[in-house]
Amino acid sequence: MKDLKRTKIKELLEAPIIGKRVNVKGWVRTFRNNQFIALNDGSTINNMQCVVDFENTDEKTLKRITTGACLSLTGDLAESKGKGQSVEVIVEHIEILGDADPEKYPLQPKKHSLEFLREIAHLRVRTNTFGAIYRVRHAMIFAVHQFFTERGFFNVHTPIITGSDAEGAGEMFRVTTLDPLNAPKDDEGNVNYKEDFFGKETNLTVSGQLEVETACMALSEVYTFGPTFRAENSNTSRHLAEFWMIEPEMAFYDINDNMDLAEEFLKYLVNYALDNCAEDLAFLNQRALDDEKNKPQQERNEMSLLDRLKFIVENDFERITYTEAIDILRNSKPNKKKKFQYLIEGWGSDLQSEHERFLVEKHFQKPVILYNYPKDIKAFYMRLNEDGKTVAAMDVLFPGIGEIIGGSQREERYDNLRQRIEEMNIPEKDLWWYLELRKFGSAPHSGFGLGFERMIQFITGMTNIRDVIPFPRTPDNAEF
Amino acid sequence: MKDLKRTKIKELLEAPIIGKRVNVKGWVRTFRNNQFIALNDGSTINNMQCVVDFENTDEKTLKRITTGACLSLTGDLAESKGKGQSVEVIVEHIEILGDADPEKYPLQPKKHSLEFLREIAHLRVRTNTFGAIYRVRHAMIFAVHQFFTERGFFNVHTPIITGSDAEGAGEMFRVTTLDPLNAPKDDEGNVNYKEDFFGKETNLTVSGQLEVETACMALSEVYTFGPTFRAENSNTSRHLAEFWMIEPEMAFYDINDNMDLAEEFLKYLVNYALDNCAEDLAFLNQRALDDEKNKPQQERNEMSLLDRLKFIVENDFERITYTEAIDILRNSKPNKKKKFQYLIEGWGSDLQSEHERFLVEKHFQKPVILYNYPKDIKAFYMRLNEDGKTVAAMDVLFPGIGEIIGGSQREERYDNLRQRIEEMNIPEKDLWWYLELRKFGSAPHSGFGLGFERMIQFITGMTNIRDVIPFPRTPDNAEF
Repeated sequence: MKDLKRTKIKELLEAPIIGKRVNVKGWVRTFRNNQFIALNDGSTINNMQCVVDFENTDEKTLKRITTGACLSLTGDLAESKGKGQSVEVIVEHIEILGDADPEKYPLQPKKHSLEFLREIAHLRVRTNTFGAIYRVRHAMIFAVHQFFTERGFFNVHTPIITGSDAEGAGEMFRVTTLDPLNAPKDDEGNVNYKEDFFGKETNLTVSGQLEVETACMALSEVYTFGPTFRAENSNTSRHLAEFWMIEPEMAFYDINDNMDLAEEFLKYLVNYALDNCAEDLAFLNQRALDDEKNKPQQERNEMSLLDRLKFIVENDFERITYTEAIDILRNSKPNKKKKFQYLIEGWGSDLQSEHERFLVEKHFQKPVILYNYPKDIKAFYMRLNEDGKTVAAMDVLFPGIGEIIGGSQREERYDNLRQRIEEMNIPEKDLWWYLELRKFGSAPHSGFGLGFERMIQFITGMTNIRDVIPFPRTPDNAEF
Repeated sequence: MKDLKRTKIKELLEAPIIGKRVNVKGWVRTFRNNQFIALNDGSTINNMQCVVDFENTDEKTLKRITTGACLSLTGDLAESKGKGQSVEVIVEHIEILGDADPEKYPLQPKKHSLEFLREIAHLRVRTNTFGAIYRVRHAMIFAVHQFFTERGFFNVHTPIITGSDAEGAGEMFRVTTLDPLNAPKDDEGNVNYKEDFFGKETNLTVSGQLEVETACMALSEVYTFGPTFRAENSNTSRHLAEFWMIEPEMAFYDINDNMDLAEEFLKYLVNYALDNCAEDLAFLNQRALDDEKNKPQQERNEMSLLDRLKFIVENDFERITYTEAIDILRNSKPNKKKKFQYLIEGWGSDLQSEHERFLVEKHFQKPVILYNYPKDIKAFYMRLNEDGKTVAAMDVLFPGIGEIIGGSQREERYDNLRQRIEEMNIPEKDLWWYLELRKFGSAPHSGFGLGFERMIQFITGMTNIRDVIPFPRTPDNAEF
């Protein structure tokens, strides 16, 4: 029999041609009554039902059709009489490509805990939940590039290994080829990094922003999308040591233009997911509902996953200053009744997730953008406002999650920037090139950062960040 | 005057509306006769000519219009009488956004060497050459994602920090937070990596292939596109310590399907560049021609940059086995006349760039795919052929550059793979999860790797790889 070309299950389900002879290849999810194979090839969350003529199939083959086995099945596409699917394959030829011993294969057709699945991250992508997350993650990657490309932005690959540590002091991973037991020393007994691979001390980047600003000052609108790193010893459901960031940077944008772009971008991503990942989102929505049934009432979300996604695209984001937010919070019920864990006393303190969520979920019932923060709680490169005490920073706040985007108009004035660098004791020698951007052809410009995994958490409803990246890196864990 | 919204120069040049009042913002490339500003905003390689009414502009402002200064110019769009452009802006209002002191600004309107520009990598993107390279690089990034998305592939972010060192022994960068002068030791006096951040020794990845295979065994067709690292002390024009790789991996593909995809992919990328980067490529083509005039005849390319690009899309790639290639090379003129630096003696040796280029440029005058290589010169995961001495590996060879893609059908048979791992003394404990992919639901599968910078070199004609990545990392260099 000449081999028939494989067709993806997604294609067959979307545009079935009844009576057509087809070949499908994939992995067995279940095998019922020695007759019904639910086959999945990852192209969609939906399985293809494949009906085996068990009376005319030898016992040995039937025994090898087990959960996890990889099969190539050939037969005619027919309307399905069973419920749950519209078409099925009437199997005429079975080829076992790879067995999966049911005694040993860890993914049996039952509910596995997310904790257990993290230990077998090389296999968890074969489950419905992780298949859906991987597909949504891909859709979001593509949507990011498409959004920016449509608008004339250029993607810039900023360096991963960096010799500048202006931003991440103390929380960076060192990159080295020196002998760890016998590092060369200089005259003062310090490590002689001149003998290291790059001739200086190098670290993994914590952000591509400073470097991408160099391209912004020539190409006008640019963005990075790459891995970033934090050597922070936080074993929480919100932190990863390695995560991906999207950082656009735009010449000639002030803080208002920056807020406009951030809102447009987030709505674009959510709409893209709703339009292109409907089946995966429906599954994840149901999954989250089932999951919440086991939680106490107060920990449940008031909105379902799909409701939260619609909440983003159907609302104008409320924009208020930090100062206005502090007034609202100070006079709020939970503050007066001391229900907040951190009470709002006065102007100047940083906001916690509970405050951000109160503003979004209770007070405005809309996504919120806070802007014009006290300069003392923000980074050195943010533009000082005329009041002399706030900077043109902005944070976008989402329900359930709090801050999802942080950004600012950048300080484009050479003298102001230099003064801030001095005030914050950052060695100027690390930033000579960053300062030169303000010396030669400076321009007002703005940008922001979106933590990609936070966004994928929001889109998929997964509560632990370790479940939205294929191979999470956290303290004491770098398996695979 | 209420601020007019900025329009990008690319848009104005592509669809000019004569008489329309416009605002353009960008950087001065040249200022001639106190009258003609060539303004560039990076949206295109082309400048907008902006005509200043110098008799009615104060001296002080005119003096500040210098190469590199950033301006906001407002005026009416008019047909241009001068040659070199069809439209120009008749400037009515000038705002200087950022000065560029001509005594200090390094990028004066003259030819700078590529070596000099590498030292000011934060500014070189403001030149025509690097603006073009950045834009082409962006176009290729987008084309990669579009190609795979159109075909139902899923992008997988494989880990950058990895605890597995199966592939890169000896050429990896260590990632650590241990005190370099006082590393904790175990009982035997070795570094006690249990106290390091991840509780084990970790390195920067040399390839995402092994990890992406895990997703391939669930989603069928996947790809990685991320940074990879080599701590190789090679100070050449062909090597970077940090570079980007594209690695697709496809279930149910044999070596022939793999070759089909590689050819289709490369042609897609080149076509995308020809269709979407015509102006930048025309500039780079001319740049390369000018450059070659200064070279001795024998070092010049027989084909221009654009000819080489067309050579890819207009030819079917020739596919021959390694064994056939050895026969051709052994009997070739340069081998018989001892013109090759490395003479081809017999079967089994690896091919050098000179041999690859001979096959492509002289013998076949087509791109060439070599396949079925001796197993001893290839990686452990490549599928053993029935002859027992070759593996189903493939290399795609391009003019001027030699190997641009390397790939293979993977060894999907558990016993064979385990034997190869043993033969090559790779610790099995590092690859337990990779072996499990063959234990549970294994499937024939294939994949390949494309070094992104090599591809950008090919598309832009740049001869030094340090010029096609924004901030190159090489031995003794991690500036910015």
